[in-house]
Amino acid sequence: MSAVSGLDGVFAPTAVAVYGASRNPAKLGHTLLKNVLDSGFEGRVLAVNPAGEEVLGVECRPSLPEPVDLALISVPAPACPDAVADAARAGCRVAVVLASGFGETGLDGRRIEVEMAATARAHGMRLIGPNCMGVVSRLDPPGARGGWFNGSYFWRIPEVVGGVGFASQSGAFGGMFIAECHRRRLGVSRFLSLGNCADVTEGDVLEYLAADPQTRVVGLFCEGVRDGRRFIEAARAVTRSKPMVVLKAGKEAAGARAAASHTGSLAGAHGAFQAALDRAGAIEALDSDAFFDTLAVLAAPFRPGGSGRGAAGGLQVAIITISGGPGVLAADAAQRAGLKLVPPAPATRARLRELVPSFAALGNPIDLTPQCPAGNFPAAIRAIFEDGGFEGCIVINCGLDLPEFGRGVVEAQRATGLPTVAFVLDTPRIEAELDAAGIPRLSSPERAVAAFAAGGRS
Amino acid sequence: MSAVSGLDGVFAPTAVAVYGASRNPAKLGHTLLKNVLDSGFEGRVLAVNPAGEEVLGVECRPSLPEPVDLALISVPAPACPDAVADAARAGCRVAVVLASGFGETGLDGRRIEVEMAATARAHGMRLIGPNCMGVVSRLDPPGARGGWFNGSYFWRIPEVVGGVGFASQSGAFGGMFIAECHRRRLGVSRFLSLGNCADVTEGDVLEYLAADPQTRVVGLFCEGVRDGRRFIEAARAVTRSKPMVVLKAGKEAAGARAAASHTGSLAGAHGAFQAALDRAGAIEALDSDAFFDTLAVLAAPFRPGGSGRGAAGGLQVAIITISGGPGVLAADAAQRAGLKLVPPAPATRARLRELVPSFAALGNPIDLTPQCPAGNFPAAIRAIFEDGGFEGCIVINCGLDLPEFGRGVVEAQRATGLPTVAFVLDTPRIEAELDAAGIPRLSSPERAVAAFAAGGRS
Repeated sequence: MSAVSGLDGVFAPTAVAVYGASRNPAKLGHTLLKNVLDSGFEGRVLAVNPAGEEVLGVECRPSLPEPVDLALISVPAPACPDAVADAARAGCRVAVVLASGFGETGLDGRRIEVEMAATARAHGMRLIGPNCMGVVSRLDPPGARGGWFNGSYFWRIPEVVGGVGFASQSGAFGGMFIAECHRRRLGVSRFLSLGNCADVTEGDVLEYLAADPQTRVVGLFCEGVRDGRRFIEAARAVTRSKPMVVLKAGKEAAGARAAASHTGSLAGAHGAFQAALDRAGAIEALDSDAFFDTLAVLAAPFRPGGSGRGAAGGLQVAIITISGGPGVLAADAAQRAGLKLVPPAPATRARLRELVPSFAALGNPIDLTPQCPAGNFPAAIRAIFEDGGFEGCIVINCGLDLPEFGRGVVEAQRATGLPTVAFVLDTPRIEAELDAAGIPRLSSPERAVAAFAAGGRS
Repeated sequence: MSAVSGLDGVFAPTAVAVYGASRNPAKLGHTLLKNVLDSGFEGRVLAVNPAGEEVLGVECRPSLPEPVDLALISVPAPACPDAVADAARAGCRVAVVLASGFGETGLDGRRIEVEMAATARAHGMRLIGPNCMGVVSRLDPPGARGGWFNGSYFWRIPEVVGGVGFASQSGAFGGMFIAECHRRRLGVSRFLSLGNCADVTEGDVLEYLAADPQTRVVGLFCEGVRDGRRFIEAARAVTRSKPMVVLKAGKEAAGARAAASHTGSLAGAHGAFQAALDRAGAIEALDSDAFFDTLAVLAAPFRPGGSGRGAAGGLQVAIITISGGPGVLAADAAQRAGLKLVPPAPATRARLRELVPSFAALGNPIDLTPQCPAGNFPAAIRAIFEDGGFEGCIVINCGLDLPEFGRGVVEAQRATGLPTVAFVLDTPRIEAELDAAGIPRLSSPERAVAAFAAGGRS
């Protein structure tokens, strides 16, 4: 059984067992079983607890009577080794140990998680965690009860099924990911909280996501990597077919010390990590905002730098605006990010001059001005998209909520395929148009530019 | 009449005239009169239009029959010089020319706005704009109809009356400011859109805000300054009594070119501007996110670096968390921002050891862990605040919505007065506690840290 097929057990299980199922709603084992049952998962659900009572309509056994694809283990730390042994003996493919109190608590805990991993391995079972939040995965086909399998402690999971596959060493950062998915309506394929990585590491999950047809973009939060060579090989496997964004915590000395006491990771010299990521063609995000922004840009149906970008220097972009000040902020950010702001070609300028007020600024940013006749926006915007000199467009509009503007952007993007991102404000009609077309909206002019530039590095 | 008392006419008028009042709701002159009438303003409102018709219950005259404090001018550009002359002759104290089509359109427009400014000056009237969005100001006393005077084109104005005074050369950035005020519930005293600065410049408004007892923090968006020496003197006047944050657009060459065609400003060499700001004790924000984050931190009832900060090196802060990964991200950001993460004193660690699990990380970040007994959070958090070695606390909590945690932070902050910022997620009960105590919540761990550090530079 390959590592990839092993992880199939966690992302696409047909039968699941919950260890530590409890009648007490205050217990995490209750939440976990409830989440599995309440999600769209339609396979077999078994429950294990010593009392053998019935929980949420599921009869519990003191031990697992038959093999399942996935054992979710939510019992107190001292009981975990027995639960892992039970699942392994029963023939489960993967166990996720959600319980904490292992490597993150010190060397004794580390020793116990290493032993659990050895037990699992001896029976051909993979082990995820311990000290993690579990798994959320899209169902294929979606099923009658919704599109998700929720094998996690999270009561709130991503809303939109889509192409972002995400793994996190930190459970709390997993929570941040889910919150951002809601805020941005980001479409997700897989979510895995890796925890202490006693057996399954970020390398394994990257290998799975590389081959996963449901995943179009890969995101990873890590504090350190267990096996640098393996990690880089897996990252390369991902970037051969899809872009990958990494947020590494513990970059600075202060963070690295903190990471060591958190998941027990050795954060290592960040320069070496950066260089390796770069060689692997992965994008490193500086901080969590940049991480989510870049994922949002890469999840769009088009991708900056996806075609025709010059090897030398940054992408040539047009900043299209009706808002002077925010346009200037975008121009500053473009220069900082290494994007190139060339003016439109003479033919484009000639077309624009017939459509926009004489005082419109036809450099770059291209400021069509709020005084531009509404009906002229589509042709003016189209002229810029069709200029031929631009590898992408950054659209900025504060408060001029004309449907003609939104339609102009969407039609021009569709006609030319040019990667496009937007910062718009107080423009509900335009926002609806952009959302329907999958044009990412970022929360400031500078973030729109930075995310476009970061996405273009893939 | 001093410049300051001149601007009193715009921020605290007792009688207002609207030039260009129109019955047509699609006209900006209609919006403007409606905004004045619908706001809490209880003074006299006059309207001027050539037709002399009644608009929104206000009788219009072809010219102003009596002096008012503030003339708001929203007529087409070619009619503006006559309107300015009429207001000046009538004896108004300030005119705000909201109309566009002047310096931003080229040299002819620039000449006309210079002439309007000269007309105003000859009659002792100040002129704001042209090409601006107007003014929004808190009423003192608040009045029966709400706390605001709205002399702007904005139908949506800040919600919360508070201490932030803000001026912007860009109207669109003014819209961004208002949106952020809503999102963050930022309390505002004054809002002024400066536009082309034909007469009143950023220096004038800074001088006013420096002396304004309702303003506790000053924010400025500018693309360039008209009179560098005047600007720096006014900035110094502000920072003698209150912090000031500046976002300068046109920092990079690309942005500077764009700024020139936008408000006709000369963006100038950014290095010189930065150095001058620094000497004046003002904080420069790199981008709009940092600008709003820093304003939010400075608007709190306490201020980073407000007392006792060492001249050498950054502030010493404690990162208090129950979320490992986000805590590590905060530690990375703290190091990047020059904050110092020293561990708690031995006595603090001893107190903590009795309250938190043995595996809690008592370095810095201080990770109390989600396994900390809920009832122990207040004492543990209090111990850190009372350590004596910290000049501020950065609190991070993803998803552990225990009231004990929120109460612990609020009580410890109140008892010690230590400046505090937070990143919390999915914690409605904690958020309510923090909001009531005025502890700023930022939208990521890194932004919480960066905003604290930026605020500490004041």
